[in-house]
Amino acid sequence: MTIALLGLGEMGSALAATLLAAGHPLTVWNRSPEKAEPLVAAGARLAESPEAAVRAAELVIVNVQGGAAAEKLLRAAGTALGGRTVVNLTDGPSEQAGVAADLVTGLGADYLHGQIMTVAPAIGSPDAVIFFGGPRQVFDRYEPVLRALGGRATHVSTDPAVPLLYGMAFHDIMWGLLNGFLHAAALLRDAGIPIGRYTEQAEPSLAALPSLFGLFAGEIDRAEFATPFGALKHHLPSIDDVIAESEARGIDIALPTYTRRLVADALVAGHGDDSYSRLVEHFGRRLGRA
Amino acid sequence: MTIALLGLGEMGSALAATLLAAGHPLTVWNRSPEKAEPLVAAGARLAESPEAAVRAAELVIVNVQGGAAAEKLLRAAGTALGGRTVVNLTDGPSEQAGVAADLVTGLGADYLHGQIMTVAPAIGSPDAVIFFGGPRQVFDRYEPVLRALGGRATHVSTDPAVPLLYGMAFHDIMWGLLNGFLHAAALLRDAGIPIGRYTEQAEPSLAALPSLFGLFAGEIDRAEFATPFGALKHHLPSIDDVIAESEARGIDIALPTYTRRLVADALVAGHGDDSYSRLVEHFGRRLGRA
Repeated sequence: MTIALLGLGEMGSALAATLLAAGHPLTVWNRSPEKAEPLVAAGARLAESPEAAVRAAELVIVNVQGGAAAEKLLRAAGTALGGRTVVNLTDGPSEQAGVAADLVTGLGADYLHGQIMTVAPAIGSPDAVIFFGGPRQVFDRYEPVLRALGGRATHVSTDPAVPLLYGMAFHDIMWGLLNGFLHAAALLRDAGIPIGRYTEQAEPSLAALPSLFGLFAGEIDRAEFATPFGALKHHLPSIDDVIAESEARGIDIALPTYTRRLVADALVAGHGDDSYSRLVEHFGRRLGRA
Repeated sequence: MTIALLGLGEMGSALAATLLAAGHPLTVWNRSPEKAEPLVAAGARLAESPEAAVRAAELVIVNVQGGAAAEKLLRAAGTALGGRTVVNLTDGPSEQAGVAADLVTGLGADYLHGQIMTVAPAIGSPDAVIFFGGPRQVFDRYEPVLRALGGRATHVSTDPAVPLLYGMAFHDIMWGLLNGFLHAAALLRDAGIPIGRYTEQAEPSLAALPSLFGLFAGEIDRAEFATPFGALKHHLPSIDDVIAESEARGIDIALPTYTRRLVADALVAGHGDDSYSRLVEHFGRRLGRA
């Protein structure tokens, strides 16, 4: 299958190299053409414009910095997109996927939006996760190519905006996890405990953490928060222990203090016997007035 | 083996029921003795004082609210503790374990401190994690009893304070993960996406999160933060996307804004090409002046 790839940053170059290795005739374009040199050496053709790249291909993959840059490129390709399929892998707030989808389908092309969930060196690996949104039959048609880029390429919605939300949700979880881990690491390091010994010995507890997601997702989806164990009121003494320990060791307390406020506010609101998942109301719109 | 259990809250009662079910002669004591009734009906003996409970047993387990209450109990038992072993399962800042250990060993008894990492209904299950600190040979002597309480009872240090730090570290990670998850859930829910569908479809990504711990622990222990991929500078545009998406949906931005400040401060300090684990310096004392 003939493919055009617009954008040759670190990620775009990894995508291009993987497509070439899979044997696809590939045309590339980049704002600074020198980035194409190793790919041209490996068999890619360098186009002089986005429009020329698109004309050479059935499938057009876009991977640039930000939705505005992607939109500009797609407008530059214009009517040359007619009859082709655009897979836009550009990050950004979710509304940008809708804007690009309307633009592309208005030009007579099919549109998928993809969110890459891995670092560039993992592109092409069987475990690499990429979320896709758009018409299911368009995903199905290109699934072999998309799976060559990430073995766990998954169609998550007919709405092209959903992959971007999935990506943001994952980042939210990852930053939360890492911030908590680094606060913990600061406490342990101050006590002279190697962090690697902790992660090894606590491995059964740490490995069980992802099982919380399904549990809490069910509570949120059903809006049923009453829980017989692990209720919000039982978290408060533990949070106070962490704050006291941090203060005694000169470790920053902003993070546990933030958590304390969330829990304390929920207790004041009468949610002390509810699950931690009740705090979703702190972040979003309250149930019943969404 | 004869066992005394001091403290019959929700957790203490679960511990006592598990010990009785395992066939141990058990003496219990609680400030309000009516909590002992179901246990006495199941075969436990109720003692009139902490001292009387201790005299009846080889192994003394303490599970009360806070280190001050535990210390008071141990002082009340006094010289009756001589020649016995105390397993203190009371939560609190880590220095309390050292205080209790000095008190108990001064009275001629052995001491272990334990941190229960599960909810009361899971006590006695093969997967229940309990961390122990104190002399290895004391743990080894009582390991069968301790494993009856939690199948994953693990000796983590000769220092009795370490289990409390392990518990705090786990809570830090759990709260971080949950806070991030609930922010993500608020975004997804606002977009009409069931949270359960997200956790199911993103499962490969979510299940891989614990693999980050070992990676980052190694970076922190070696104080080697330079990384070819996933560097701090690459996080900033993604954080800005989450903040923009949250603002567009009326979702609270305090959490991603907190993360943004951590990353932005590290970029100003010249750490843009380093791993996220470099932020351990934000929380704790800086490398080289610990």
